[in-house]
Amino acid sequence: MDPIKQVEAFISAWNRCDIAQIEAALDEAVIYHNIPLEPVSGKAAVAEVIRDFLAGAAACNWETHHIAANGPVVLTERTDRFTLANGREAAVRVMGTFEIAADGLITYWRDYFDSVEMMREFGMDGGDGAALT
Amino acid sequence: MDPIKQVEAFISAWNRCDIAQIEAALDEAVIYHNIPLEPVSGKAAVAEVIRDFLAGAAACNWETHHIAANGPVVLTERTDRFTLANGREAAVRVMGTFEIAADGLITYWRDYFDSVEMMREFGMDGGDGAALT
Repeated sequence: MDPIKQVEAFISAWNRCDIAQIEAALDEAVIYHNIPLEPVSGKAAVAEVIRDFLAGAAACNWETHHIAANGPVVLTERTDRFTLANGREAAVRVMGTFEIAADGLITYWRDYFDSVEMMREFGMDGGDGAALT
Repeated sequence: MDPIKQVEAFISAWNRCDIAQIEAALDEAVIYHNIPLEPVSGKAAVAEVIRDFLAGAAACNWETHHIAANGPVVLTERTDRFTLANGREAAVRVMGTFEIAADGLITYWRDYFDSVEMMREFGMDGGDGAALT
């Protein structure tokens, strides 16, 4: 399976909230880096972050606007939409890079977004965030 | 010239502070969108934003980590380093999408980054920003 198809399958797994499939796509040595935050290293730690995150999200609807590969490196431009557990709708504009090993597993995932937009959309900015309570 | 080479030439023009070459690469109807900010439309308006910006930057050293194309759409992962006019060094981690017309001109440029990182690096956050004065 080519790297673009691997990334498309990974995004599909998110959109099904299929945690098992999400985790199965990760290399043991994966590094997951939401660029405004610290990177997380290793499949177990990354899986824990993802499980914690999905505990607060009732649904994901990530739209891929553009995707392109250069060998094993896949670049994406997306809008990641979420329905949160409290019913709130969130949308974050994101670009992300995925590096895919020869066996098809993800070894590196870096997502670039504005942390102010993310905090606002998730109601963590002390403003509309009141809706979270 | 293929779309990737057009974008590489555009980034080279930034790294030479070659404003004429930067402007020459823009379509008349170009839209320039730093995602955390409002989009700017039209070559004249975009050129003005770029000239204003470069007035505060003594040098650009943008490093392209990854670049990939899907037809006329080119996705980049970069670290945009700047030496500001006051001597301050700034580095912003960026992903950006460029859409290239058949004639090689840029019709759309979207850059994704964390506005908090950008403000901090440019000394506009009220913290180390004291160095700007």
